[in-house]
Amino acid sequence: MRDHIELNEHERAWENLTVTYRTLQRARELELGQMGLTIPQAGVLHFLATSKEPLTPMKLSRQMNRQPHTVSALLTRMEDQGLVNTTKDLQRKNWVRVSLTKKGEEAFKRQLGARTSLNAISCLSENEIDTLHTTCKKLRVNGVELIRQMQRGPYSDPLFQ
Amino acid sequence: MRDHIELNEHERAWENLTVTYRTLQRARELELGQMGLTIPQAGVLHFLATSKEPLTPMKLSRQMNRQPHTVSALLTRMEDQGLVNTTKDLQRKNWVRVSLTKKGEEAFKRQLGARTSLNAISCLSENEIDTLHTTCKKLRVNGVELIRQMQRGPYSDPLFQ
Repeated sequence: MRDHIELNEHERAWENLTVTYRTLQRARELELGQMGLTIPQAGVLHFLATSKEPLTPMKLSRQMNRQPHTVSALLTRMEDQGLVNTTKDLQRKNWVRVSLTKKGEEAFKRQLGARTSLNAISCLSENEIDTLHTTCKKLRVNGVELIRQMQRGPYSDPLFQ
Repeated sequence: MRDHIELNEHERAWENLTVTYRTLQRARELELGQMGLTIPQAGVLHFLATSKEPLTPMKLSRQMNRQPHTVSALLTRMEDQGLVNTTKDLQRKNWVRVSLTKKGEEAFKRQLGARTSLNAISCLSENEIDTLHTTCKKLRVNGVELIRQMQRGPYSDPLFQ
C-alpha cells in the first residue's frame, strides 16, 4: 500500500463537483430508464422536437456537445428502435436530415412529464442558483481555454473551435 | 418544426451545470488522452495507488460511484493492457483482489503530473469555492433522496443504499 495522495483545494472542489454531477445524472438516468430511454437519447429527442430548423447529425453533435462519431452511433441505434428517421436531403447532396418518427414524438411527450430529477436544483435558493450560474460561467470559460491550449494540433476538436 | 419548449429556472441551472461539467470533463479527457489514459482508467489507477486496504472490484465500484458491471469490464480491459492484475484472494474464497502492475504504477505516476485540468477551478475565489461546496452538498443530498425514491423496488442500486 502507498501513502495517501493529498488533493489540493482545487482538486477537492473538482472531485466534489464530479460526485455531485454523477449523483444527479444517476437520478436522471433512473427516471428516464423507467420509460425505456437513456440520457443521450432524451437529448436527441429534445433537440429534434424543439429545433426551429432541420437538423443534421453534425448540427446535433454541436448542440449536444458530443463527438460526431458518438452521435452517429446513437442515431443508428435510435433508428433501429424506430425513434428517429434519417433521410437524404434532396436539395443538398451528402446532407442527412434527422427527424422524429411518430414513436419518437410519443417518447418525447412522455419524457416531458419526467422532470423530477431535472428539478433537483429546486432545493437551492434563488440566490444560490444565481451564484451557481456565475460559477459555472467562469469554469466554462476556463475549461474552453484549457481545451484550446491542448488542441493546438492539426486534429483539433471541431466542437470547441 | 414545433414550438420551442421553455425550461424553468431549475432546469436551466441543471442544463448549465451539465454543460459546465462536460466542458471540464473534456479538458480532463484531452489531458489524460495525451498519455494514453481515459478518465475511468485514471480513476482506477488513483484508487489502487492510494488505497490503504486491498481492493476488490466491488469496493472499487463503490468508491468510483459506478455500476459493478462497468467496473468489471473496465478492469478486464486494463488487465489486457497490462495496467492491473486480478488475483484470487487465498484467504477468502470468491474474492478477487485488484492490484497495480509495474506498468500501472508508472502510468499512475505519469498522470500525477497531469493536473492542469484538475486545477481549472483555480479561476474561482476561495469564497466561491466554499459556496460551490455548500451547493454541491445540498444537491447531492437531494439527488441521493431522489434515487432512493425511484429505487424502492427489488432491483435497487447497491451503490446508493
